Amino acid sequence: MAIRIFITGGTFDKEYNELNGQLYFKDTHMADLLENGRCKVPVEVRTLMMVDSLEMTDEDRELIAHHCNSCEEMQIVITHGTDTMAETALVLEEKVKNKTVVLTGAMIPIKFGSSDGLFNLGSALAFAQTLSPGIYVAMNGKYFHAGNVRKNKESGIFEELK
Amino acid sequence: MAIRIFITGGTFDKEYNELNGQLYFKDTHMADLLENGRCKVPVEVRTLMMVDSLEMTDEDRELIAHHCNSCEEMQIVITHGTDTMAETALVLEEKVKNKTVVLTGAMIPIKFGSSDGLFNLGSALAFAQTLSPGIYVAMNGKYFHAGNVRKNKESGIFEELK
Amino acid sequence: MAIRIFITGGTFDKEYNELNGQLYFKDTHMADLLENGRCKVPVEVRTLMMVDSLEMTDEDRELIAHHCNSCEEMQIVITHGTDTMAETALVLEEKVKNKTVVLTGAMIPIKFGSSDGLFNLGSALAFAQTLSPGIYVAMNGKYFHAGNVRKNKESGIFEELK
Amino acid sequence: MAIRIFITGGTFDKEYNELNGQLYFKDTHMADLLENGRCKVPVEVRTLMMVDSLEMTDEDRELIAHHCNSCEEMQIVITHGTDTMAETALVLEEKVKNKTVVLTGAMIPIKFGSSDGLFNLGSALAFAQTLSPGIYVAMNGKYFHAGNVRKNKESGIFEELK
Repeated sequence: MAIRIFITGGTFDKEYNELNGQLYFKDTHMADLLENGRCKVPVEVRTLMMVDSLEMTDEDRELIAHHCNSCEEMQIVITHGTDTMAETALVLEEKVKNKTVVLTGAMIPIKFGSSDGLFNLGSALAFAQTLSPGIYVAMNGKYFHAGNVRKNKESGIFEELK
Repeated sequence: MAIRIFITGGTFDKEYNELNGQLYFKDTHMADLLENGRCKVPVEVRTLMMVDSLEMTDEDRELIAHHCNSCEEMQIVITHGTDTMAETALVLEEKVKNKTVVLTGAMIPIKFGSSDGLFNLGSALAFAQTLSPGIYVAMNGKYFHAGNVRKNKESGIFEELK
Repeated sequence: MAIRIFITGGTFDKEYNELNGQLYFKDTHMADLLENGRCKVPVEVRTLMMVDSLEMTDEDRELIAHHCNSCEEMQIVITHGTDTMAETALVLEEKVKNKTVVLTGAMIPIKFGSSDGLFNLGSALAFAQTLSPGIYVAMNGKYFHAGNVRKNKESGIFEELK
Repeated sequence: MAIRIFITGGTFDKEYNELNGQLYFKDTHMADLLENGRCKVPVEVRTLMMVDSLEMTDEDRELIAHHCNSCEEMQIVITHGTDTMAETALVLEEKVKNKTVVLTGAMIPIKFGSSDGLFNLGSALAFAQTLSPGIYVAMNGKYFHAGNVRKNKESGIFEELK
């Protein structure tokens, strides 16, 4: 069965607006990344929202949980802003059962030359295929269980709580 | 414990020689890729050889197997040319026991703008952390068991034999 | 004689801060660009400031004019934010005589994959070597005389006033 | 009036064939480069051939000269392999009069991350707009008169003969 990919925005998909110098969201770069990685895993991609994760609301997280539960796929990758990825993982931990859900993102927009997005997507798709049901964060080449992960605000690196 | 990364060459690490227009090997780009991916998985990198996989000999494969067995790490990623990756996997299948070994590579050199190398490395490191002991090929976002994989020469895509 | 290159900041040199998602100035990317272009024109590079051109003051422009006059080189390239490039050109037109001064910049930061900075630098260095003394803006592959150029705020394209 | 751009091949336009690991010609990347540079100079692009300049024949050079003479534009940029760029310039010097012709190319294919092609194109278009009629080579940020330029085979750098 295919892997479901849900897009929620985050640094991953930010673009540079030439006219005003601001970063903004246009379309997701998921299709480009999958092509770039020559990915042949069957995937179903759906954009749920395009938001900075600092602006993600409880309602947004409800929506994500709802889609995780209602889609037919059992393996799910979610692209998400890094600032509140751990919070969303906690919400999904409570509401989504019996599926393997892997949240990932990027510290640098895909459109920048040195983004970690392609690496993270590769690892997230692999973790989604191999980890037992549960909610995970995949960043920095590692996976973390929901409830035992935070983004270190000083270093930008994801780490275990304990 | 760390993941061991062995470098053997392949398209992954090819560079363009400005003076004669030939592709050649200089150094591995592994350190750059790990930095690009903001990888924080502990890794030990060692270059075993720098060869085009079409020129890899039985002796070379013996050497790779030897290093897989003698290193202390239990999880191993090997970068390898795609043309004979499946053959090397078969040799390792026979000679290396009780370790998780993941071979990966790239269809396009890392130094080209659109390489799949960063994606493949992300997936290979993830598979090495999660698959049970055995020999695997990680390409196109998927993993394959040694003995049940080949590179389709027409499409360049890895596929199961059966 | 060498070409003098003055750095003043602008989009050209903006970087992405991974920790807070803001664009900021660190160092100029001029050395990387010159290496990337295999440039062998003798150049002397000096950073005068690192500012967004919307924040450039009259005093800043005085400083730029002063350096244009006091350096020994007769051909000068200035990297500058695009928003007020035309204004600075007007100030230099009044204060700098008998030198060929070419202002250039970028619509997209150099560090983004699709920046116009390398193209613009190539054209600016060429114009500096070939145009007669005067103050010019080099953008979009063209050159414009100071006093007869503006950035179209809707399109982001530089155009003649008349 | 527009600038005429003639494409003849060379390293500039080489691509990497994923299936056999060879460099080859497909289409020119000129349109991408002009877009990347946000170039607004009116140009007319025509591909005359797609060859490695080591394989360029006298007949090929005749054809290039013919097109330089017969096109209506007075300013011409030619993309060309670097190995015999100086030879072609000599042929054009003899056969093309009263037009400004600038040959340029790249040491690294455009599709590689660190190509000098965008820089060279920016300088070539600028030189074509500003130099008096004659035949020139634009490489390394400089321009050279036909008959007084060679590519140093050891360094890959273009230099004057005297």
